[in-house]
Amino acid sequence: MGRWQPDSRGRLQEAALALYSERGFDQTTAAQIAVQAGLTERTFFRHFADKREVLFGGSAHLQERLVAGVAGAPAADGPFEAVARGLAAAAAMLGEFRRDLSRQRQAVIDANPELRERERTKLADYAAAVAAALHQRGVGEPQATLAAELGMTVLRVAMQRWAHDDEDGPDLAAIMRDAVAELRAVAAGT
Amino acid sequence: MGRWQPDSRGRLQEAALALYSERGFDQTTAAQIAVQAGLTERTFFRHFADKREVLFGGSAHLQERLVAGVAGAPAADGPFEAVARGLAAAAAMLGEFRRDLSRQRQAVIDANPELRERERTKLADYAAAVAAALHQRGVGEPQATLAAELGMTVLRVAMQRWAHDDEDGPDLAAIMRDAVAELRAVAAGT
Repeated sequence: MGRWQPDSRGRLQEAALALYSERGFDQTTAAQIAVQAGLTERTFFRHFADKREVLFGGSAHLQERLVAGVAGAPAADGPFEAVARGLAAAAAMLGEFRRDLSRQRQAVIDANPELRERERTKLADYAAAVAAALHQRGVGEPQATLAAELGMTVLRVAMQRWAHDDEDGPDLAAIMRDAVAELRAVAAGT
Repeated sequence: MGRWQPDSRGRLQEAALALYSERGFDQTTAAQIAVQAGLTERTFFRHFADKREVLFGGSAHLQERLVAGVAGAPAADGPFEAVARGLAAAAAMLGEFRRDLSRQRQAVIDANPELRERERTKLADYAAAVAAALHQRGVGEPQATLAAELGMTVLRVAMQRWAHDDEDGPDLAAIMRDAVAELRAVAAGT
């Protein structure tokens, strides 16, 4: 690799995850992340509002993908089928991240109660947005809320499995489809 | 009613919910709750560690009920059937509360981001405990996590509906059974 490395954002993320893993999230500062990435603190704050944003920066985009997938589902789709389309759209985005960094990210979150709360809040926000998208399709309650919550359960379980799988294991979209099928089997009681 | 009112705990809960609803949770103190209930602050703290505990005081007991219901399910039960037994055990406990107070409690929580986070944390704790009880029954992953998460979705949806129903509407156990059936239908996509 040459001296000039264009992807400051990626370098900052990698440096941040390494420091969060080594020292803990609370013990890491934005300044330390910048030093580790060979960049300035100012550059850090050009990319991220704060050090939590390194972990949750893509969430608005992810929510848009989920909602667009649900909204664009064929009219004949049932509520959970429409949610599964949203999950496929989300998988296309999330699956582009590096698996090793996703694993590291999840370990950092799991180790910190405040970050776990933040993650749960994000998932609750996604669920509310997905339920609203289902209402727009004419789905009533409790079906919309149930389908949205099932979708978030699939998302969480599939992301965990994907991050912990081998690099050459199935991709996120395939894992997501498997998780949908497993959830259906568990719900049916078979 | 005579002058002597034995149920200090119930009076404190009712007073707290009234004040949380009127003034907001953050603007209410333990001292004000005690005055409203006609009791001393010392009595308040004999019943509750803090003012959040008024809202979440029964959660350890509820978790025990859920876990005991799952653990006591017939060996032939599938994972989600076992979870439904846990939900029935929880409904027997939760259904004893006054519906109007449950509704008030939920409105207070919904109005306060910190309390919503606390509620999500409790539900995540229940889910982890239920998944652990399923592991004890020999259920593997991801089935245990999926079944536990489905159960918490039913619990939340059913509690909401029960609290908002008429006083003479179906009881919580019946609403819980309906929600299980609705979740199965949504998951199956019918």
